[in-house]
Amino acid sequence: MDTDFTVVAAVAAERLASHWHDLAAGELPVLPPGGPGTTWNALPASAPEHGEDLGEILEDTWRTIVPQLVHWQHPDFLGYYPTSNSPASVLAELVTAGLGVQGMLWSTSPAATELEQMVCDWLAKALHLPEAFLHATGRGGGVIQDSASAAVVVALAAALNRASQGRWHTHGTEGRYRVYCTEEANTCVAKSTRLTGVGAVTHVPTLAGTGVMDPAALSVRLDADRAMGRVPAAVVATVGTTVTCAADPVAEIGAVSREHGVWLHVDAAYAGSAALCPEYRYLNDGLEYADSYAVNAHKWMRTGTPCDVLWVADREALTGAMSTAPSYLYNAATAAGRVVDFKDWQIPLGRPMRALKLWYVLRAHGLHGLREAVRHDVRMAGVLAGLIAEEPGFHLVAHRLGLVVFRCDSDERTRELTARLATESALLCTPATVEGRPVLRAAVGSPYTTEGSLTRAWDTLRSHATG
Amino acid sequence: MDTDFTVVAAVAAERLASHWHDLAAGELPVLPPGGPGTTWNALPASAPEHGEDLGEILEDTWRTIVPQLVHWQHPDFLGYYPTSNSPASVLAELVTAGLGVQGMLWSTSPAATELEQMVCDWLAKALHLPEAFLHATGRGGGVIQDSASAAVVVALAAALNRASQGRWHTHGTEGRYRVYCTEEANTCVAKSTRLTGVGAVTHVPTLAGTGVMDPAALSVRLDADRAMGRVPAAVVATVGTTVTCAADPVAEIGAVSREHGVWLHVDAAYAGSAALCPEYRYLNDGLEYADSYAVNAHKWMRTGTPCDVLWVADREALTGAMSTAPSYLYNAATAAGRVVDFKDWQIPLGRPMRALKLWYVLRAHGLHGLREAVRHDVRMAGVLAGLIAEEPGFHLVAHRLGLVVFRCDSDERTRELTARLATESALLCTPATVEGRPVLRAAVGSPYTTEGSLTRAWDTLRSHATG
Repeated sequence: MDTDFTVVAAVAAERLASHWHDLAAGELPVLPPGGPGTTWNALPASAPEHGEDLGEILEDTWRTIVPQLVHWQHPDFLGYYPTSNSPASVLAELVTAGLGVQGMLWSTSPAATELEQMVCDWLAKALHLPEAFLHATGRGGGVIQDSASAAVVVALAAALNRASQGRWHTHGTEGRYRVYCTEEANTCVAKSTRLTGVGAVTHVPTLAGTGVMDPAALSVRLDADRAMGRVPAAVVATVGTTVTCAADPVAEIGAVSREHGVWLHVDAAYAGSAALCPEYRYLNDGLEYADSYAVNAHKWMRTGTPCDVLWVADREALTGAMSTAPSYLYNAATAAGRVVDFKDWQIPLGRPMRALKLWYVLRAHGLHGLREAVRHDVRMAGVLAGLIAEEPGFHLVAHRLGLVVFRCDSDERTRELTARLATESALLCTPATVEGRPVLRAAVGSPYTTEGSLTRAWDTLRSHATG
Repeated sequence: MDTDFTVVAAVAAERLASHWHDLAAGELPVLPPGGPGTTWNALPASAPEHGEDLGEILEDTWRTIVPQLVHWQHPDFLGYYPTSNSPASVLAELVTAGLGVQGMLWSTSPAATELEQMVCDWLAKALHLPEAFLHATGRGGGVIQDSASAAVVVALAAALNRASQGRWHTHGTEGRYRVYCTEEANTCVAKSTRLTGVGAVTHVPTLAGTGVMDPAALSVRLDADRAMGRVPAAVVATVGTTVTCAADPVAEIGAVSREHGVWLHVDAAYAGSAALCPEYRYLNDGLEYADSYAVNAHKWMRTGTPCDVLWVADREALTGAMSTAPSYLYNAATAAGRVVDFKDWQIPLGRPMRALKLWYVLRAHGLHGLREAVRHDVRMAGVLAGLIAEEPGFHLVAHRLGLVVFRCDSDERTRELTARLATESALLCTPATVEGRPVLRAAVGSPYTTEGSLTRAWDTLRSHATG
């Protein structure tokens, strides 16, 4: 089977390189042609009884699966926020899968843990995060999660445990704790707040016309909740909101949170990567107040999904909430307190070697290369914003980093355009709502997007608006 | 960069095939030689400014990382429960990473969702699960999670939402809900119960001398808790406990749970895969009472980590708890209710194409091949159990499926042996506690374990016991 593997793996690599070439050349549609059931109906209803040839399965992938995918790295994919990728990331996934180790404890694969500690420190330094977030300090540190959502769940667990002085372990959330964010926070904050048993998240008013959290309103709300016997546990600030890429004023929110003794988690899933560049480092202002901070390397750092990096300033606050110590995981290194066991930094017990991917990407691209990728996308978004600003009948709603949000001159026309684009396979912009009005979002993130591809995409979009 | 990728990917595949050959031949130690800091100290303290050659990074992997890993597929790795792997699984990870799509919604990659629905149905049929768990019914279905822990969190969210008739969405767990399992359940149940805000899990007494849940005691406990104004939300039964691979009596527990209107989740993370074989299908007895059921394909089904499959009998009970509908995810297919959106079946929002790996493995091995793999491991465990039973000074504590649990004739000797083995790099058995007494566990799961390798491993172990 091993010989077969090397042959078929080489074929798969050729297939992928050719796929990337086709993507770059715009030779594939962004969206697939088939409706619901297309793939389902093309598959047999049961697993085969006997083994099939790997090469044949690979061919089937291109026959049956690839034509019904949305191509997230297509130059004309402008929906949602990007999901990044690179050959270095793909190579690392191959090696990680092949080595097949499990790094729940330091002792179950020391290199998996220590490499993860180191690359999280590398990235913290590259983003100029406060020193408290470094493993090298022995107090804080980073850990790779599968999503920004998981990062919020984990941060809330630590926050609830701290706010309750440990009672949370036995008594749960008791209907007393509160978690705060604005309505512009990603839905993962509300979902995570529900999942941790707190119930509905508490929305803090925004500063008029900005969509970002009002620190004074937060302070008032925290005082009022305390006065009513509730326990404020965590504030979640967003740097780069999903709809418009706005940033809550972290320094002011942080000062209020600290004054009230409330855990501050900062979700910078998309925008955080921009802080690799000195000119965007202001996005990190105020992080010295943060107890935890998360950025999705899989959004804007040439790293395939999943790769969310969560840092905490006080690792014991996290492990105090998350740790388990069953007899079947006993080992001398843990007992001696000499090591980090990442099982206590995450929801799952088991974990693959998560860090190899980030290590490959950081080394293969270098910080310079990753900065240039951010700058390229920001430049491209500028090109698109320019085209929109010049176009009669269109209005720019927001333009920040790689994101451009726009609408037509009437909500009716925006809705019509959105509906027409949904049946269009040549580009993808996704709808959203800003202050009650429909908008379209275009987020640039493909390494293959060029000024030429953007201009063509814009022409296609315009033709639907007038057609 | 693309040409470089195909060259270096082919080199990586050769490296891995050679690594697997060395593993099979027993030419690598199971455990690495270095203590804490070995890998950390071998790495530079910062990311490079400029990009490095991918081939060089690959070489560094074998220089710096591989020597400090624990080799989970080594024939003499007998610790914990196995983490499985296969060339088909590794190939699928390469292709999945290369295609780089994100399947949060059906519309963000239709084939990713429909393939996952289909392979979950394939596996449900292969395991002879109740029909209610099939996507084909339009009511239930399976979804791939990253861990058995995440599966429990998700199941508890659905259970809490159902038990509270939706109040959980706004009011959280309110300190009133209860989750039940035995002390033999994996710690992920207690951890998930904490994470969902319930607080401490409620332990149900076990039947004397068996370690499995006493259904009568469960019934008494549920009644008593209701009488005290608490709300029993979920019972978690285990098929294949972590320490001894014992199975709670699911049918009796299920009848009690249903009578009391409590959600039943069955965690069969390890043992569930054995039900691929008709002779072990009894492990599924009683699943017609289960609301949710999970098995880790990454433990015993030749699929690399992570790959936990969670099935639910009522998908709306799950999505009613987990769904979000922000403006920025609006799409026509979701609005028309014609599709499954897996973001509402899991904690994260985003997700890679998770199903390709299981598709490749099920096809490449065939059900026959996967059954033979289970039978091989069970046979090998029988060989080891025979050696232990014949050995003066050793006692078998449990022997089920691929797991053998044993101890020495005094606890002192068992502890000494455990300590000596911890410094031994030639094999890995891990300690645990059964009824307060120290034991050692040997779980067979490597495709390379043979009668010869086991006999050699046992000789090594014996020499430490007498030495």
